[in-house]
Amino acid sequence: MSALHFSRVVIVGVGLIGGSLALSLKRAGVVGTVVGVGRSAASLEKAKSLGVIDEIASLEDAARGASLIVLCAPVAQNFALLHALEPHLEPGTIVTDAGSTKSDVIMAAKTALGDKVAQFVPAHPIAGRELSGVEAALNDLYLGKKVVLCPLQENARTDVAAVRAMWESTGADCHVMSAVQHDAVFAAVSHLPHLLAFALVAQLVNAEDAALKLDFAGGGFRDFTRIAGSSPEMWRDICIANKEALLREIDTYEKVLAHLKTQIKEGDAEGLERVFTRASGARQKWGTARAAVTNVEP
Amino acid sequence: MSALHFSRVVIVGVGLIGGSLALSLKRAGVVGTVVGVGRSAASLEKAKSLGVIDEIASLEDAARGASLIVLCAPVAQNFALLHALEPHLEPGTIVTDAGSTKSDVIMAAKTALGDKVAQFVPAHPIAGRELSGVEAALNDLYLGKKVVLCPLQENARTDVAAVRAMWESTGADCHVMSAVQHDAVFAAVSHLPHLLAFALVAQLVNAEDAALKLDFAGGGFRDFTRIAGSSPEMWRDICIANKEALLREIDTYEKVLAHLKTQIKEGDAEGLERVFTRASGARQKWGTARAAVTNVEP
Repeated sequence: MSALHFSRVVIVGVGLIGGSLALSLKRAGVVGTVVGVGRSAASLEKAKSLGVIDEIASLEDAARGASLIVLCAPVAQNFALLHALEPHLEPGTIVTDAGSTKSDVIMAAKTALGDKVAQFVPAHPIAGRELSGVEAALNDLYLGKKVVLCPLQENARTDVAAVRAMWESTGADCHVMSAVQHDAVFAAVSHLPHLLAFALVAQLVNAEDAALKLDFAGGGFRDFTRIAGSSPEMWRDICIANKEALLREIDTYEKVLAHLKTQIKEGDAEGLERVFTRASGARQKWGTARAAVTNVEP
Repeated sequence: MSALHFSRVVIVGVGLIGGSLALSLKRAGVVGTVVGVGRSAASLEKAKSLGVIDEIASLEDAARGASLIVLCAPVAQNFALLHALEPHLEPGTIVTDAGSTKSDVIMAAKTALGDKVAQFVPAHPIAGRELSGVEAALNDLYLGKKVVLCPLQENARTDVAAVRAMWESTGADCHVMSAVQHDAVFAAVSHLPHLLAFALVAQLVNAEDAALKLDFAGGGFRDFTRIAGSSPEMWRDICIANKEALLREIDTYEKVLAHLKTQIKEGDAEGLERVFTRASGARQKWGTARAAVTNVEP
């Protein structure tokens, strides 16, 4: 047995993210039993038959003797889940989450858990696929990926260290940020692009000549809209949970787009080229830097 | 020698698109000599040393005895190129182009070529990479790709057939559309996404905490912004050349985005999910259909 070992891990929401975490912990050999909790009995049975989880239980039963409980359901469910968990949460159990937004879950945890909020260590693995559901889970989804930890002042150092070690066992690298900083960063680099991609596809399918247009959509469209294939429920929740930071980014984006529109209208070739050159250079530099670090396609 | 053969093909603008066409025609064995014309002597020398072109010439010299002249420079240069070409254009030569916009180049050709416009067959290969320049040229770039032909009433049937056969020799499939229809389709599925991707990266690099944000940008950002690494000059020209259709698409997009913003502001989870579900379903369906046809990643 490794020095790091969780005898009973509870995954609440066994989809892509939760399922991949279960598989990764099993692969790393740091977990005894994985218990799955979820809304859909069929999906939990599927997870069990795939070997992603070992047992299926209610949240109340799962909590008994749990070393670690990981919330992986769409973020809007966190308050209700934490509220239901609170009476059954034992002193030795660590709770963490895998949500894409952090300020909202911290507020939910403070309200729902009261003093027990000290046991809750907020986290966000930066990984995903445009596929969802447990069938899409991979045992190496987190390999080389970043995980952001937003520890609370109330957290015990050892609990934060355990959550960090748990993620590092999956091959991920951990980084610490404040929840506010986290939410601003991800509104800009993740939530806004998802919203923009959904918006573009929505516009296209509502066009009169949608079929013709989709027929001639090429590789640029494919890459730009890949994230528009993501889970509607998950992204609905994220947009609302990170409302404030996202609305700020949308406001800025509307201004950038309005400026480009004016340049196009006025035929301001020089101005347009200035913006495009700056963006293109930055994107290429980012791609090169990223390829050097992750050894993947830029 | 194949039934299809062009003894002397002139490529004006030997970058990714023109260079890939030259390589593809050589691979298909349907071309004698490929002559390169361009603004940069260094880039033409590079093309020659890579075996992409066989000769370098001025437009005037290149036109002498040419079977086919293909305009592959950024679209804003087409009028000046056609104007310079007109006195030297011989009766047996076909002229075509590879530009992403069609109404503008047709107007330019009518003005610059006068009666000789009958020799100009407008075309648009739907292929590209986020890399540009002759070093990025591939001899199979057009394999399985679509090419849109927008023939003029003035064109001889045999000239249209020759341009079609030329593209088919590269492995592409040809489709016929009106120029207006073409410009509306590509404003929606290509020009708008490029503009939106440039805008997102421009917003990010202008942020105070740009470095932190870029550091945490993940796979969604990578795919969404890949096209923002494209040639600034080319896209500046396209945006201005297809101004009318693009402005219509931007106006619609602003409305779609404003609607989503209101839904987020009001916490309208149901409304947001409705839009996301429709977009996500359409994107997944498109990806599946496309994968079935092209045997590539959706």
